[in-house]
Amino acid sequence: MAERLTIALDAMGGDNAPRSVLRGANIARKRFPNVDFLLVGDEAKLAPMLKRMPKLKRAVTLVHAPDKVGADDKAAQALRSGRNSSMRIAIDQVREGKAQGLVSAGNTGALMAMSKVFLRTLPGIDRPAMASFFPTMKGESVMLDLGANIECTAENLVQFAVMGELFARMVLGSLKPTVGLLNVGSEEQKGHEELRQAAAILREGRHPLDFRGFIEGDDIAKGTVDVVVADGFSGNVALKTAEGTARLVADFLRQTFKSSILAMIGYAFARHALRKLRARLDPRRYNGAVFLGVNGIVVKSHGGSDALGFATAVGVAVDMIQYGFIESMKREFEKSAGTPLVPPPSEAPAPAQAPPKQAAAG
Amino acid sequence: MAERLTIALDAMGGDNAPRSVLRGANIARKRFPNVDFLLVGDEAKLAPMLKRMPKLKRAVTLVHAPDKVGADDKAAQALRSGRNSSMRIAIDQVREGKAQGLVSAGNTGALMAMSKVFLRTLPGIDRPAMASFFPTMKGESVMLDLGANIECTAENLVQFAVMGELFARMVLGSLKPTVGLLNVGSEEQKGHEELRQAAAILREGRHPLDFRGFIEGDDIAKGTVDVVVADGFSGNVALKTAEGTARLVADFLRQTFKSSILAMIGYAFARHALRKLRARLDPRRYNGAVFLGVNGIVVKSHGGSDALGFATAVGVAVDMIQYGFIESMKREFEKSAGTPLVPPPSEAPAPAQAPPKQAAAG
Repeated sequence: MAERLTIALDAMGGDNAPRSVLRGANIARKRFPNVDFLLVGDEAKLAPMLKRMPKLKRAVTLVHAPDKVGADDKAAQALRSGRNSSMRIAIDQVREGKAQGLVSAGNTGALMAMSKVFLRTLPGIDRPAMASFFPTMKGESVMLDLGANIECTAENLVQFAVMGELFARMVLGSLKPTVGLLNVGSEEQKGHEELRQAAAILREGRHPLDFRGFIEGDDIAKGTVDVVVADGFSGNVALKTAEGTARLVADFLRQTFKSSILAMIGYAFARHALRKLRARLDPRRYNGAVFLGVNGIVVKSHGGSDALGFATAVGVAVDMIQYGFIESMKREFEKSAGTPLVPPPSEAPAPAQAPPKQAAAG
Repeated sequence: MAERLTIALDAMGGDNAPRSVLRGANIARKRFPNVDFLLVGDEAKLAPMLKRMPKLKRAVTLVHAPDKVGADDKAAQALRSGRNSSMRIAIDQVREGKAQGLVSAGNTGALMAMSKVFLRTLPGIDRPAMASFFPTMKGESVMLDLGANIECTAENLVQFAVMGELFARMVLGSLKPTVGLLNVGSEEQKGHEELRQAAAILREGRHPLDFRGFIEGDDIAKGTVDVVVADGFSGNVALKTAEGTARLVADFLRQTFKSSILAMIGYAFARHALRKLRARLDPRRYNGAVFLGVNGIVVKSHGGSDALGFATAVGVAVDMIQYGFIESMKREFEKSAGTPLVPPPSEAPAPAQAPPKQAAAG
């Protein structure tokens, strides 16, 4: 029988909280009967709702938090004055060992800042990164950073590569995941200086990674590599552009099936198969971004996600706890403790010569 | 009757050159009977091919160019030693007034560098940008820069906004196109400093633009704005990610229609409508990126494009010539000659306060 786990849920975070969180927990409760939930939030609001969900009520423990972090609060503000927020108290549950992980659909910036400050980063990691799965022509890949770090040094990118590779190995089950750096061309001299430096370090082979060099935007969906490493700005743009494009094509497809009688008949025949396609592309299936590098399992559910999406994010947290992700990460970084992740500046291989920063598109 | 135009074609540029260029010219010749073509390339190769295409032969004038720019040549190298290349001689045709525009599927970096040096930029423009159309839920939008300028200042971004807006007004026919800056969130304090500065300048209203502030990756396909302004790195990542995602969904759709007998029957009924959808999303329909800000019409066809795509790129050049794009651009920038595009540093509005560069994803 599976070991019992405890996960803290930020009941007040997200556009549809607390309703979507409670309903999400209700789905997750059935999917993961070995998980106990700490439902962190305003007792006065949550208790009456739980009264109407008796089965959920038995599976959760209410942890009172009088405040919440607003969607538009600045991270610094949340750090200063969020002491009594549901987000902060959910983090405290993990810090104090009362829960092994937490899920929040709240303010991303505040969640990242609080996780870093109160759970701290793992030894060897300067900055945590947000990582998530996405579907590709070959299966699934991982991309990071998705927006936690707008500006990244070469060192940050190298650390992302190492963390992302471990994540893919554990959660995707790839034995030897391939890793690529998102750039605007595959040639060595392309892109920002930090990218070229990071590539030089990764090519040097200090880290036992299967590094495949630079990839471009269209390689993401192709599944050219298992782990796409990007600075938080590009990663965020790529992720959201992909979501928007998938929605556009789905929208065009809907219009297509309404465009003629024959098309409508066609739809009727293919309906079952098309429903499976819709499920395959459902963004809720890929909900749940992980904060890699934090000393604790923190999963961010999309702010606008519904109950089903929230339950998926809970599933990601369950997976990571069961795989012993934090312990593996620590082991991984201890192993390489003798050889620092990033060589000191004097030893660093010279990056490929900087050409005029021009002319990227192929 | 339409005025006669002349367009120079770089016959040796692109993965499938010169064949795809000749075939593309053959399609364009029928579409645009008022256009004469200067076919620039190796006479020894082209002459025998033209012999087998007698109708095309009558529509083109061969201009001999003994060399060509290689796909992997560095821009600097092409500038130094590309004097006798088909690309350079095609540019010379425009510079010498023998052609009103040119189309090349060759090396993007070399084409941009040569265009800048030999055609020069328009007064008021520091750096040209690559712009292209793409389909959205609302119709079509324009995005720039798509990869010509990896690092951009706030000034560059403001100039891109002004050029892109004019381009959309002329070629999309929008009376008052809306303009947005691609970022990782819509709040004022999000993203790189240059973005915040550019937004502050555009918000100030010196330029009569309908500036809508920051947009995110998913707004691109939504058509939230008519003109998406980005630095060349993000723009390139977004464009290629969108292309890759559209291809992924199309691929999944193909698999779906093969997944069961019912689905196959459904496909048979909906085939005609689905074919129209395919045409709507065909990347060849959107082939042809324009170098905005260069003193001459330069259109870059995708390196891997086939004849149909090349013909589309020729169509873009025809449109821009017929709309008198260069003249309008000059007028536009003369109009604002009194008010510099970008105020001198002392006058520049202070950008929104820089927060810790963290936490972008929503």
